[in-house]
Amino acid sequence: MKHAVTFTREGRAAPASVHVPTGTLISDAAGLADIEIGQPCGGQGRCGRCAVLVEEGTVRRRSTLRLSQESVEHGYALACQAVVEGDVVIHVPVQEKIERQLASDRMVAEVSVPEDYDYPAYQSVRRLHLTLTPPSMDDQTDDWARLETAFRVQHGIDQMAISLPLLTRLGAVLRMGDWRITAIVDMRLGSRQQSPRLVDLRPGHEDEYSPLWGAAIDIGTTTVTVWLVDLISGKVRAQVAEYNGQIARGEDVISRIVYAGKEGGSQELQHRVLETLNKLLELACQRAKSAVGNVVKVCVAGNSTMMHLLLGIPASSIRLSPFVTTVNQVPPVTAREIGLNACPDAGVECLPGVASYVGADITAGVLASGLDRAENVTLFLDVGTNGETVLGNRDWLVACACSAGPAFEGAGVLNGMRATDGAIEEVWIHSQTLEPTCRVIGKSKPQGICGSGLISLLSEMFITGLLDKAGNVNLQAPTPRVREGRHGGEYVVAWAKETQTGQDIVLTRVDTDNLLRAKASIYAGFTVLANSVGVPLDGIGQLLIGGSFGKYINVEKAVQIGLLPDMDWSRFVFLGNTSVKGAYLALLDWRQQERIAGIARRMTYVELSADNSFYEAFTSALFLPHTDLSKFPSVEAALTKTLTGDPAPVGDLPVPDR
Amino acid sequence: MKHAVTFTREGRAAPASVHVPTGTLISDAAGLADIEIGQPCGGQGRCGRCAVLVEEGTVRRRSTLRLSQESVEHGYALACQAVVEGDVVIHVPVQEKIERQLASDRMVAEVSVPEDYDYPAYQSVRRLHLTLTPPSMDDQTDDWARLETAFRVQHGIDQMAISLPLLTRLGAVLRMGDWRITAIVDMRLGSRQQSPRLVDLRPGHEDEYSPLWGAAIDIGTTTVTVWLVDLISGKVRAQVAEYNGQIARGEDVISRIVYAGKEGGSQELQHRVLETLNKLLELACQRAKSAVGNVVKVCVAGNSTMMHLLLGIPASSIRLSPFVTTVNQVPPVTAREIGLNACPDAGVECLPGVASYVGADITAGVLASGLDRAENVTLFLDVGTNGETVLGNRDWLVACACSAGPAFEGAGVLNGMRATDGAIEEVWIHSQTLEPTCRVIGKSKPQGICGSGLISLLSEMFITGLLDKAGNVNLQAPTPRVREGRHGGEYVVAWAKETQTGQDIVLTRVDTDNLLRAKASIYAGFTVLANSVGVPLDGIGQLLIGGSFGKYINVEKAVQIGLLPDMDWSRFVFLGNTSVKGAYLALLDWRQQERIAGIARRMTYVELSADNSFYEAFTSALFLPHTDLSKFPSVEAALTKTLTGDPAPVGDLPVPDR
Repeated sequence: MKHAVTFTREGRAAPASVHVPTGTLISDAAGLADIEIGQPCGGQGRCGRCAVLVEEGTVRRRSTLRLSQESVEHGYALACQAVVEGDVVIHVPVQEKIERQLASDRMVAEVSVPEDYDYPAYQSVRRLHLTLTPPSMDDQTDDWARLETAFRVQHGIDQMAISLPLLTRLGAVLRMGDWRITAIVDMRLGSRQQSPRLVDLRPGHEDEYSPLWGAAIDIGTTTVTVWLVDLISGKVRAQVAEYNGQIARGEDVISRIVYAGKEGGSQELQHRVLETLNKLLELACQRAKSAVGNVVKVCVAGNSTMMHLLLGIPASSIRLSPFVTTVNQVPPVTAREIGLNACPDAGVECLPGVASYVGADITAGVLASGLDRAENVTLFLDVGTNGETVLGNRDWLVACACSAGPAFEGAGVLNGMRATDGAIEEVWIHSQTLEPTCRVIGKSKPQGICGSGLISLLSEMFITGLLDKAGNVNLQAPTPRVREGRHGGEYVVAWAKETQTGQDIVLTRVDTDNLLRAKASIYAGFTVLANSVGVPLDGIGQLLIGGSFGKYINVEKAVQIGLLPDMDWSRFVFLGNTSVKGAYLALLDWRQQERIAGIARRMTYVELSADNSFYEAFTSALFLPHTDLSKFPSVEAALTKTLTGDPAPVGDLPVPDR
Repeated sequence: MKHAVTFTREGRAAPASVHVPTGTLISDAAGLADIEIGQPCGGQGRCGRCAVLVEEGTVRRRSTLRLSQESVEHGYALACQAVVEGDVVIHVPVQEKIERQLASDRMVAEVSVPEDYDYPAYQSVRRLHLTLTPPSMDDQTDDWARLETAFRVQHGIDQMAISLPLLTRLGAVLRMGDWRITAIVDMRLGSRQQSPRLVDLRPGHEDEYSPLWGAAIDIGTTTVTVWLVDLISGKVRAQVAEYNGQIARGEDVISRIVYAGKEGGSQELQHRVLETLNKLLELACQRAKSAVGNVVKVCVAGNSTMMHLLLGIPASSIRLSPFVTTVNQVPPVTAREIGLNACPDAGVECLPGVASYVGADITAGVLASGLDRAENVTLFLDVGTNGETVLGNRDWLVACACSAGPAFEGAGVLNGMRATDGAIEEVWIHSQTLEPTCRVIGKSKPQGICGSGLISLLSEMFITGLLDKAGNVNLQAPTPRVREGRHGGEYVVAWAKETQTGQDIVLTRVDTDNLLRAKASIYAGFTVLANSVGVPLDGIGQLLIGGSFGKYINVEKAVQIGLLPDMDWSRFVFLGNTSVKGAYLALLDWRQQERIAGIARRMTYVELSADNSFYEAFTSALFLPHTDLSKFPSVEAALTKTLTGDPAPVGDLPVPDR
């Protein structure tokens, strides 16, 4: 008996139908209908990437281990593990669409404007129109006093600050605009008690609703992210990211600080990050069809070292006991003062940090995640170079940091790279053949492995026995991909002929060690922090994961390598780059800026380096997933299942509207 | 019968005595005693430079025409005109002393500190000591928050502004001083309502009474003057002056504005005046044995064009109808912002101007002269390039300006020069021989003629008939010094062999015309201004004369050429450079800064260019002394006396304590 299997796909008008006998795999039926369903794991039910949505009828699911209960309830099935038992309508998510979205920059995702955002109510920077009486022999008032009067009479602003360079342009702008001008003014709302400040003067009356540009910036040790925002609508109009140009002078904050201490080092590092920032601002403005000179407000998040280096402030005290910064709450500066390529008088708000190793990226992350308003105890984890963790709720906040290193950002790993075109972002290894299947960002050949790819690779190598729990490569494994390389045992993820570079892409023993140290550091950090306030990991309501690549972590695999604690997946929330998101919120709304100041004030910093228990926790976590496997029951189960051929459920499921 | 003539001299312990017969001239007696009394006019009683003080006994005065009644009452006599009739004690002012004082810079004179000055009460900039608790693992507060706390606890200062460059030095200074530092703070007293601002940070606790340096600056179109002031004691510790480096790009404000309008012109002029300023600051600090980086406060006066050019603000609107400036009250800037070589965060207060041609030099002049508190109607006259005049009292102030040109500052005159070493500052011409006697600043040979020398020369040439009332040189005069030169009729003041340059020093027809236009312009200015408010010249209680060389003008000669009105000399007060003096007062005392702001607000500007009566007054004044000689009765008398050989009294008498 044959059954009609009808496939629907997004964006395609006509569904395709085939008739197949009972027991046919959906993936096979799709093949008959000429519909490509990617099966990176080779149809083993292990990668979960062939998930399809059963819209009508039912299928028999052989395995749903890679699907969450919720996904199954929604009607998802793995095409390679589900068989036809009657007429069905199957929806196939368009995989090309995902690829295209990722192609230009994986960071790009729709950002929703806060519901309560209102320009001009909550925006400190405003566009004001002024019409001045021209001077005459009977009224020889100077230009500036004339403008001050117009501000007073037309906008009720009594006192206005102006910079000298803007003053030098005043006469020309007034006359060019025939005494009608548009002023961009920073009202300096909030608790500052300073008079409004002129940011820009433009001849004529600009369209009131044309974009007023602001930039939210996250300066990561490894990656710099810029969001270009229209302050009127609140919408993010361009998102760009790039490696921090300082990487060439050290991959972690400590080596940057050391370099900054050398003759001219501080200036060079400042110059390098500004080069990156200015390139990104230029690119973002190009995409939004604007110009950098129109960016009238900037909000910057970043760890304390990055903030010091951006401002040219010596960071040496950060790495020397007792580990203090020069400044956590940087006074307001302008783009001109720091050399940022924006409107020269644009205010640059550096968000407040808390300590040497808990910077503005973390306060911004707390703001973006809403941890400071949570009812239940919540853990916020920034899976970045510095592995900062915040634990708390609306009543209290404690924070710590550990030096995880840049391995998860693709740096410090031989073939590591940023999550951009050509990066292997997920790997599945066939348990029998030990052959890898890779998902590459964009449609190009691979050229390296990004953070999520590294986690995925590590996990797969461990689960398939290519790595032992100490991270040693099993050189006896029956595959030519395992070999003794210059850096010890290594596994070839892609052969030279398949890659963009024409060279093998490998994971070396050194890479593995770096990754193990990074994950151990992060794991030890949050466990020690939770212990210090007497909260068991089980008592944590939610685990919020920030960090520029956090959004793309496969939970299962992150748990399998012991990076994340083994808890119910529903308690994990992946927030992506919360640092830039916090900067975005503070950029938009002066109330959020007050709020983040409050977060910084409330947060108690716990110094891990003064804590022996951290070192113990760290060394225990240097294994896959941990010396104490009982802390990771799901991994224990997965290892058993893999041995018996049963795959574990997938966590990072493509959903129809992605 | 012989009489004992005893000479006393300042600074010399032993008086010298000679015995001479009745009727001996004091000058001859002095010669016998080997005491040199200079007689520039050759003993004709015309120059008044040989005045001596009769301390005991009496002499018979043949002529006292060059002495004021007051001087005679004080006991002065001209050594060449007084004869011995009994024992006398004669005090001889030490002329070398005068010369030495003038040698380095004629501007240098003791400035008295205002009696009510009190540091720190009235000084906005203060030196504060702070002792911080060093950070520890138990107190990881950042450096800046730590310093803020110290300001709050130790000095009651709640909020403190800091610049980014100062913030970059904070960590090092704190550690260098072992957490004891000296902060230089601008309290921003007065009506500003801004939080105090850090100006400098220095390691350790500085001596509380060691000088705290400030600079009072006058930027004249022709001459730039810098006074280096100890803000603690209020004393002026060095006074230096130099031609404004912009002169090479135009001698008056109009040509400067035109030049500034050219491509790169504004930047060049700004650079040039800054070069002059920085050279002067360097020199002043050398003299005071300090360094420019220690100058923590600057107060600048200058006309509106100079102020715009200093700040790099386009000045074009100043010379185009309706003649408005970009800014009269410049917002506070720092030395760093304008490129002044001082402590980078030193506040630079640009004093307020009133109009395009009545700038901060005039409001500073009114402040320094006290005109704004005068009970009687008083005229303030700045005998500079722009000939500004203010008329008023404590109730009202009106002001005007006329473009006099730089002739009186020695520019625009063939052999003109600034009043410094080698400048002829006074000339006497023998009425018979027509030979000149010159007084030269310093002991060197002459190299040119400064402003007071030009007035003196013009007057002498007129009185001796070398010039007619229209300024034509009498080529028939029986002296080889009169000749037809390249620029028309000219008079040789010094022959080539007598000069430093090895060339004749002459006054040409063109020079005379420039000088006539300058003096006519100034005379017309104040007469029209007085007319405009219905005050006759006679109704003016005092005539205050400012301007960098005003102090050295010989009143009699200035009246003789028709520069100053012919009124009782007791009504003239020569104040010297009132612009720099006003800047000095505002530098010291924030109350004076408020006061000068009030002066600027109260002052009504009268635009002469819109007034036909100015042109009439100007053309009438283009003669020596004026078309209407009846306005100058004393000159009429002097002309008569000269013809009869009787000299006129001298106005500018050296006094014993000079």
